[in-house]
Amino acid sequence: MKPTYRAMQVTRPGSLELITRNTPIPKSGEVLIEVEACGICGADIADIEGVDTALQSPRVPGHEVVGRIAAIGENVSTRWRLGQRVGVGRLGGHCNECRQCRQGRFQLCENQVFVGSTGDGGYAEMMLARSTGLVSIPEELEAVEAAPILCAGIATFNALKKSGAEAGDLVAIQGIGGLGHMALQYARRMGFRVAAVGRGEDIAEDARQLGAHLYIDSHAEDAAARLKSLGGAQAIITTVGQADAVSSLLSGLAPQGRLILLGAGKAPLALSAGQLIVGERSVLGSITGTPYENEKALGFSVLSDVRPWIEILPLEQAFDAYQKMKSGDVKFRMVLTMKANT
Amino acid sequence: MKPTYRAMQVTRPGSLELITRNTPIPKSGEVLIEVEACGICGADIADIEGVDTALQSPRVPGHEVVGRIAAIGENVSTRWRLGQRVGVGRLGGHCNECRQCRQGRFQLCENQVFVGSTGDGGYAEMMLARSTGLVSIPEELEAVEAAPILCAGIATFNALKKSGAEAGDLVAIQGIGGLGHMALQYARRMGFRVAAVGRGEDIAEDARQLGAHLYIDSHAEDAAARLKSLGGAQAIITTVGQADAVSSLLSGLAPQGRLILLGAGKAPLALSAGQLIVGERSVLGSITGTPYENEKALGFSVLSDVRPWIEILPLEQAFDAYQKMKSGDVKFRMVLTMKANT
Amino acid sequence: MKPTYRAMQVTRPGSLELITRNTPIPKSGEVLIEVEACGICGADIADIEGVDTALQSPRVPGHEVVGRIAAIGENVSTRWRLGQRVGVGRLGGHCNECRQCRQGRFQLCENQVFVGSTGDGGYAEMMLARSTGLVSIPEELEAVEAAPILCAGIATFNALKKSGAEAGDLVAIQGIGGLGHMALQYARRMGFRVAAVGRGEDIAEDARQLGAHLYIDSHAEDAAARLKSLGGAQAIITTVGQADAVSSLLSGLAPQGRLILLGAGKAPLALSAGQLIVGERSVLGSITGTPYENEKALGFSVLSDVRPWIEILPLEQAFDAYQKMKSGDVKFRMVLTMKANT
Amino acid sequence: MKPTYRAMQVTRPGSLELITRNTPIPKSGEVLIEVEACGICGADIADIEGVDTALQSPRVPGHEVVGRIAAIGENVSTRWRLGQRVGVGRLGGHCNECRQCRQGRFQLCENQVFVGSTGDGGYAEMMLARSTGLVSIPEELEAVEAAPILCAGIATFNALKKSGAEAGDLVAIQGIGGLGHMALQYARRMGFRVAAVGRGEDIAEDARQLGAHLYIDSHAEDAAARLKSLGGAQAIITTVGQADAVSSLLSGLAPQGRLILLGAGKAPLALSAGQLIVGERSVLGSITGTPYENEKALGFSVLSDVRPWIEILPLEQAFDAYQKMKSGDVKFRMVLTMKANT
Repeated sequence: MKPTYRAMQVTRPGSLELITRNTPIPKSGEVLIEVEACGICGADIADIEGVDTALQSPRVPGHEVVGRIAAIGENVSTRWRLGQRVGVGRLGGHCNECRQCRQGRFQLCENQVFVGSTGDGGYAEMMLARSTGLVSIPEELEAVEAAPILCAGIATFNALKKSGAEAGDLVAIQGIGGLGHMALQYARRMGFRVAAVGRGEDIAEDARQLGAHLYIDSHAEDAAARLKSLGGAQAIITTVGQADAVSSLLSGLAPQGRLILLGAGKAPLALSAGQLIVGERSVLGSITGTPYENEKALGFSVLSDVRPWIEILPLEQAFDAYQKMKSGDVKFRMVLTMKANT
Repeated sequence: MKPTYRAMQVTRPGSLELITRNTPIPKSGEVLIEVEACGICGADIADIEGVDTALQSPRVPGHEVVGRIAAIGENVSTRWRLGQRVGVGRLGGHCNECRQCRQGRFQLCENQVFVGSTGDGGYAEMMLARSTGLVSIPEELEAVEAAPILCAGIATFNALKKSGAEAGDLVAIQGIGGLGHMALQYARRMGFRVAAVGRGEDIAEDARQLGAHLYIDSHAEDAAARLKSLGGAQAIITTVGQADAVSSLLSGLAPQGRLILLGAGKAPLALSAGQLIVGERSVLGSITGTPYENEKALGFSVLSDVRPWIEILPLEQAFDAYQKMKSGDVKFRMVLTMKANT
Repeated sequence: MKPTYRAMQVTRPGSLELITRNTPIPKSGEVLIEVEACGICGADIADIEGVDTALQSPRVPGHEVVGRIAAIGENVSTRWRLGQRVGVGRLGGHCNECRQCRQGRFQLCENQVFVGSTGDGGYAEMMLARSTGLVSIPEELEAVEAAPILCAGIATFNALKKSGAEAGDLVAIQGIGGLGHMALQYARRMGFRVAAVGRGEDIAEDARQLGAHLYIDSHAEDAAARLKSLGGAQAIITTVGQADAVSSLLSGLAPQGRLILLGAGKAPLALSAGQLIVGERSVLGSITGTPYENEKALGFSVLSDVRPWIEILPLEQAFDAYQKMKSGDVKFRMVLTMKANT
Repeated sequence: MKPTYRAMQVTRPGSLELITRNTPIPKSGEVLIEVEACGICGADIADIEGVDTALQSPRVPGHEVVGRIAAIGENVSTRWRLGQRVGVGRLGGHCNECRQCRQGRFQLCENQVFVGSTGDGGYAEMMLARSTGLVSIPEELEAVEAAPILCAGIATFNALKKSGAEAGDLVAIQGIGGLGHMALQYARRMGFRVAAVGRGEDIAEDARQLGAHLYIDSHAEDAAARLKSLGGAQAIITTVGQADAVSSLLSGLAPQGRLILLGAGKAPLALSAGQLIVGERSVLGSITGTPYENEKALGFSVLSDVRPWIEILPLEQAFDAYQKMKSGDVKFRMVLTMKANT
């Protein structure tokens, strides 16, 4: 193991700086990961721009991390071995002791580490991780393929499982980006009738290739009205943060349909209570998922041949990659690679 | 059967007028009910004030109707017999043929009659009803006791069943009026830890008598903060229409808790997507329920000794009773009786 | 419409006889179907061999019926029109009035007609059907393709929906015949990891083509042990009636797994309570489903390109077809066609 | 802390011997409990009679243990403090690492300690316990009251929560002993219509006092037929191990009803697949529950005033108490007290 490693650090909000750090020794319950790839997620914006006050600069962002275990601290399960391929998503390790953990709801742990936010993340050659947050990575997936599954993948995979929709039911995916393009693939392979709701026609063909049975351009038509004309969507998975855009889809839900929220903007959602009541509709928030669930998302990706569509850049170009992601000009996920480690 | 009957009719929005009508003959699928009692529900306001454009004056309001079958049309199930005690709630009869009915979701029937709104209701000595909307009334209940169960009762009984809360979990009831006072009784008898959330201290003692383990005066303290300090409510059943009041309770939900909406005001709810997502919380609309479910609510009321607290006035004082209800100065339900029929 | 029609009738238990009948006029709530195709199901054995005492010979068997509406009785929903393509499965029409129907559980109707058993079925050119049992047939499906979906399809499609299994979970299908070969296709397209459990190697390749990820030959190895070695099946859908074969698979269920029964033999199942308790496993009976659910099964078949594998014979060879089915020498469903009608 | 403590040990199968042991020091993840009370459960029979081959004599039985923490090993959550009142049930502590634990299903942990069986139990003044198995005991409960809740209570409380029954539904409890008498109390307070099914009339009055709305003496009448005449039970919770008795109740289940198994005898259950299928009924095994769920059972017992009916004997009379339990001549739970500790 090298005594130092390189990382991209948020020294000042809004920028990333290449630094060199001393390689740390994992403490009790921790492992050291030699990072191979790290995806760039929309949630990184809050971490890099410093919107989230929980963030204490300087900090290394990145929470779609895949690599190999380089060192193991004390009190780590024997499940984890040196050299093993592992990953970490946004939820960086639960405590096993709080009220939520004792109910087995690890994704709601009250003492969770949020990788890249309350703890250093994966825009780096090395990263410390709590062992309770580790995810085993299947052989069949390249590091750069697996990384986006750990957040964009699990978030949409789990949302679809909570959707209440049955095989053949109409499920709409709003926002065809990092999360949405995974959602389309999963939804199709779970047997849903899949509608993609995006802005503009340029993405229509991609959406169909990813699995959408139909593409609705919300710039060109009233997406809710279109869904309604099809009988209503049994579930809408929304990956966008703009409250207006989300609220406007509500009337496209079928009776007893569910609107599942994955992304939150600053403005509150304005929802018609009448629409919810008369059709017994519901709105449900969903966060990514537990490490075990992440392994299920990875396993399903292998089983059903789901892969993120990615653009790859080396670690030192993280800022370019980040800006490209922010501009929305990515199909559909930027992933950093750490050449030294792969 | 008398050739004519008296009814209180909305001839002009905002008023009720005593009229006399000819007794009708039930058509195919209908029965004629000799009304004994009719509750006065908050939803009557829309019907009487003419806010709902679906309402075509003149119209007889009232959708918590109990009486006896006086005549039976063709094509009515043999389940219903002359003289039988029956009731009708807001949902006045489903079609058995639409997409929702074919799924067994009769409460969402696309061709539902809304009693007192799209069809004449129970502020009258006689009323025609679709047989698919009929509810059998158990012997053990007086007509005036049973009537409020058909809307205020079933609405809250069903909402509690959908709450996802388990025995011993904290369940909050917001709004201690016609619906809320039923909710408190049901919630207590289903084994929940019950919090009543009301405005002002004058109702606190009643709330406890009705079954609340604790009373939260939202005028005197931050109700959401109080719920949170107790670990959060697993479910909040809200019976109030004011969007602000509802939104403000959201942060009192426990992780994976459900906010269940029963009453809709005009303003949209403003909900924080972040609060929903981070704790995997949900918001769910609920309407009253099917005739079978109404019979279950009645049966549970008998089994567990739940009764509405009522104030009784004769039919011809319907307008006074209605105004008293609107003023909020009722503990907790106004019920009209038709002297001629009881 | 012709004044007479031909049918294959069970005059004496164990045989089928070609007869000619007068074309009947549908009564209230009924339609007359000009049959185009009728599948031959394992359940026909009871109807033909006279094992079921409810069967009153003479009787026309067959409950996977597809055709066109030739005449409509009174009191039939306007949803159904002359010439419309419709089908009927085993459940021939619910009453809308019994305790189960009032709960929307039409598949459990207490007054259900069992097609081919308590009412004449589809081994015939014409058949009377209750309109509440009618299923709309999508354009995309040939009559001979749609017919087996109405029983073998819906039974397995619904069982899979009740399985509690999630995308990527291991689901085993026991018995690769008329029902099982549909189950394999549906299970694969719902995103499950699919294990086929059959007897003998001759069917292995077909099973894989139908969608199985793996084939377990229960003659060659201990199927339960194999499932266990894979972590256990989250659900086992069993289509076989032999109690021994079913019981022997129980230990192949994962913790909290479900064994779903579709076929019942005469002998009771012998189940270890300990195995059920220690792993919180369950055993669940499932019957086919409602007409609406049948339409969902048909719709999913179109959406996901699921088709029964069939062998076709004309009506007058029904007895040969039936005997072939009984011998197990069919891949995988016999279907009769009524030349006159197609 | 005293250097030695007394315990009742199974030196030879079928007997209990008073011994003195050296007080141990808790290892990593363990605490030492000064036992105050220990219930005597039917499952102790296997531990004492040596039926279970996993049992390695000599062994201290007892898995309804309440006491105070006397010493704490390393790596124990700060949730647990010296002197704190705690309890342990049958499931003595999960590993947090196995496949089941990573899914949050701690009750199914693959490395669970079974208290009194694979580890020493609570027929003793002192007992070592894994901290992951600890249950916090509320102030409001005496040690002797709390002890039986940790197994008999949680088992039935959780079974009722899994029953699928709704408020007002008929729920039958088969076997009115240690578990059954808790089930009656819980079921009543959860709002079910409660039928007790026992053998003989001598227990009828007790059953009613405990909460049963009706008592069915299975010696005097056909219990399944009686349940059926009442519309069928939505759930049957069976606490008895005799396979015949359990199987015979199956036909008393309502359509879609659930039979929940808590006790397993040696003989397999013989279940009619037809009965399961035609009514879509199910059979479900249930084990006790997690420490968090145990705290919920205790909390509900306090909230709703549920208490076990107990007979108390001192530790040294454990064998007498055990034999009394075996004879069935207890109303309804034997509990040992450790005088030295209370």
